Amino acid sequence: MLETPIITLTTDFGLKDPLAGLMKGVIQRINPNARIIDITHNIQRHNIFEASQVIAMSYKYFPSTTIHVAVVDPGVGSMRRPLLVVTEDHYFIGPDNGIFSPIFEDLKSNFFKVYHVTASHYFLPMLGSTFHGRDIFAPIAAWLSKGVESFKLGEEIDDYVKIPAPKSVTSDSNTVTGEIIALDNFGNAISNIKTEDLAGLADVNSKEKFTVEFNNEPLSLVSFYAENETGKLSAIINSFGHIELFVFRENASEKYNIKIGDKVIVSLA
Amino acid sequence: MLETPIITLTTDFGLKDPLAGLMKGVIQRINPNARIIDITHNIQRHNIFEASQVIAMSYKYFPSTTIHVAVVDPGVGSMRRPLLVVTEDHYFIGPDNGIFSPIFEDLKSNFFKVYHVTASHYFLPMLGSTFHGRDIFAPIAAWLSKGVESFKLGEEIDDYVKIPAPKSVTSDSNTVTGEIIALDNFGNAISNIKTEDLAGLADVNSKEKFTVEFNNEPLSLVSFYAENETGKLSAIINSFGHIELFVFRENASEKYNIKIGDKVIVSLA
Amino acid sequence: MLETPIITLTTDFGLKDPLAGLMKGVIQRINPNARIIDITHNIQRHNIFEASQVIAMSYKYFPSTTIHVAVVDPGVGSMRRPLLVVTEDHYFIGPDNGIFSPIFEDLKSNFFKVYHVTASHYFLPMLGSTFHGRDIFAPIAAWLSKGVESFKLGEEIDDYVKIPAPKSVTSDSNTVTGEIIALDNFGNAISNIKTEDLAGLADVNSKEKFTVEFNNEPLSLVSFYAENETGKLSAIINSFGHIELFVFRENASEKYNIKIGDKVIVSLA
Repeated sequence: MLETPIITLTTDFGLKDPLAGLMKGVIQRINPNARIIDITHNIQRHNIFEASQVIAMSYKYFPSTTIHVAVVDPGVGSMRRPLLVVTEDHYFIGPDNGIFSPIFEDLKSNFFKVYHVTASHYFLPMLGSTFHGRDIFAPIAAWLSKGVESFKLGEEIDDYVKIPAPKSVTSDSNTVTGEIIALDNFGNAISNIKTEDLAGLADVNSKEKFTVEFNNEPLSLVSFYAENETGKLSAIINSFGHIELFVFRENASEKYNIKIGDKVIVSLA
Repeated sequence: MLETPIITLTTDFGLKDPLAGLMKGVIQRINPNARIIDITHNIQRHNIFEASQVIAMSYKYFPSTTIHVAVVDPGVGSMRRPLLVVTEDHYFIGPDNGIFSPIFEDLKSNFFKVYHVTASHYFLPMLGSTFHGRDIFAPIAAWLSKGVESFKLGEEIDDYVKIPAPKSVTSDSNTVTGEIIALDNFGNAISNIKTEDLAGLADVNSKEKFTVEFNNEPLSLVSFYAENETGKLSAIINSFGHIELFVFRENASEKYNIKIGDKVIVSLA
Repeated sequence: MLETPIITLTTDFGLKDPLAGLMKGVIQRINPNARIIDITHNIQRHNIFEASQVIAMSYKYFPSTTIHVAVVDPGVGSMRRPLLVVTEDHYFIGPDNGIFSPIFEDLKSNFFKVYHVTASHYFLPMLGSTFHGRDIFAPIAAWLSKGVESFKLGEEIDDYVKIPAPKSVTSDSNTVTGEIIALDNFGNAISNIKTEDLAGLADVNSKEKFTVEFNNEPLSLVSFYAENETGKLSAIINSFGHIELFVFRENASEKYNIKIGDKVIVSLA
């Protein structure tokens, strides 16, 4: 653990209610040295898939031993289990509802352990069963950040929930088919086609070698947003290595009515 | 005081303007060791009652000696007084407009002192009278967190403003009548009927013993949200010990047109 | 540098996507001692002028040696240069697109240096060119906060971009003409006429000496918001020393259809 360990928060609580603030209070009461960083509290309500994508694209940018707490939890208070995932570099704490599926996917070949958290003496006394973020996940994160060992928090399990994410498909040596998995704040539409998928076709740095197709229209693949100022839909490899559709200085998703799940095809020109 | 004292912020400034950020800058300039935690900046504009409820439900989850700054302040710059409330465990700083009413109610039988803050040598030099959050409340919180004694900040008073909150009423030994006091980000409707009110009727853990009535309809009282998946309005004891109305995975307030002040009745079944 | 240096963030990323959180992760990974303060992430998309105003009104309230990172960057990935501005008291990091224009204006007669940041060994390895906030600006801020000297980050330049801001005009010894430059979260409309402009006319503390005119209507100039409870548009000198138009407890911009650029005139009564 770092001297001043980092705990990140990803929730669907929004920023009006004091829920995120209360989790921070609970953490600081247990471990005054913890530093808390908001990843986002604006996950769409109960959208476990959205939260899982956000965590997967974010965790690697935090220091080693960071504890990532994710609370999108429609099943709060039911029999769904609280989880602690321990990997070589990071910790993840949240409900057993598939929210860490892309992490499990990422780690396939690496060492990791999943615990069903049952050490209720670390929980807050509960007045009701509607806010495990404050009563279970925040204190577990705080105690872990103070050095409590993972195996003292519960039993190791291997039947945790995994929700399969849509995958891009390399249908032949010329074509990769994927779909839109996220729409960002700017209206950019992010697909699940990654640089490494394209690398199977040709050198990614030779952008002229690729054709991106959306809704039966070919799109140019550019190197930076301002390269296409025509106001037309265009494609780019974004800073997460994904093919992204955009319109320079406009909201592409609104202008072209792009939806999660829409198909994107990249092929050799 | 803690070595790295905590100052919380609760305001109606929103998150577009840099106002909350400026309060943080001012605090850090005076006390670099202070840790600042946002409770919320999205209190409805000038809604002192909403702010007072949020502070009352939040402060206990923070470490002892935390300083809570609350700025919902339509009377800024007028004769309304800046207050410092000192309790056994916490400090509260904000305008004398009733924003700390539930705190005074909570503390009735306990030790607390209220100061009219007048020590203007601790204030920032003021260019105008529209932002006491930055010019008065933030610096006072920061100096207090550095160990300046409360009595050096102003005179003790006892005529501070108290706004009475709607209270639940136990009308006979079978019935508690209350009302909706908050609608949360998920659309859940929170009443002012608490676990301790119900305890006068029967054992709170025997949920089948209670009937909750809203708008002349009886509602089931469940133990966790997912227990009622019918899409109908249902009741739960939430994690603050309040009776709360919800629809599983839906926005109950919109679906059932629930408003602040709507009546809720709990009786023995 | 402070022992625990402060880095502020001002962006148009919004608070749904994890972009601001990722910048914080990157900074903490490089310098665990840095404290990060959000000024705002809700600048209107690509509105460089709005961002420049926000930074200009904010930076002075932060401790000396604070590093201010501003990312409103439609030209990300193009030839536009990353800048580091070093002043006697503060550092500014962001794209060379005019975002620091009011800072340059403020500093006219003071010492300051502007560097074109080229030390790419401090950048993150880039998968794409869409997020220099994470890949360039955050790491440069973090390394600077660790004590890396400015001149090691790039070459000094003097042809950085400046966007002229609308200025108030003292047309004769009786009249100052300005315009609305910002609408805040409360609907208050802030002009570019400042206390020091009025000081040329008469003593600012004698508010009865001034007439404020908007849309051919005279407005009263009051000392605090609650002084005019009529529901009519009124003027005040706000806490940044600017003439501001407001309606007590209402949204003045909506009620009076006030827009950025609308003319405001202050004259001797």
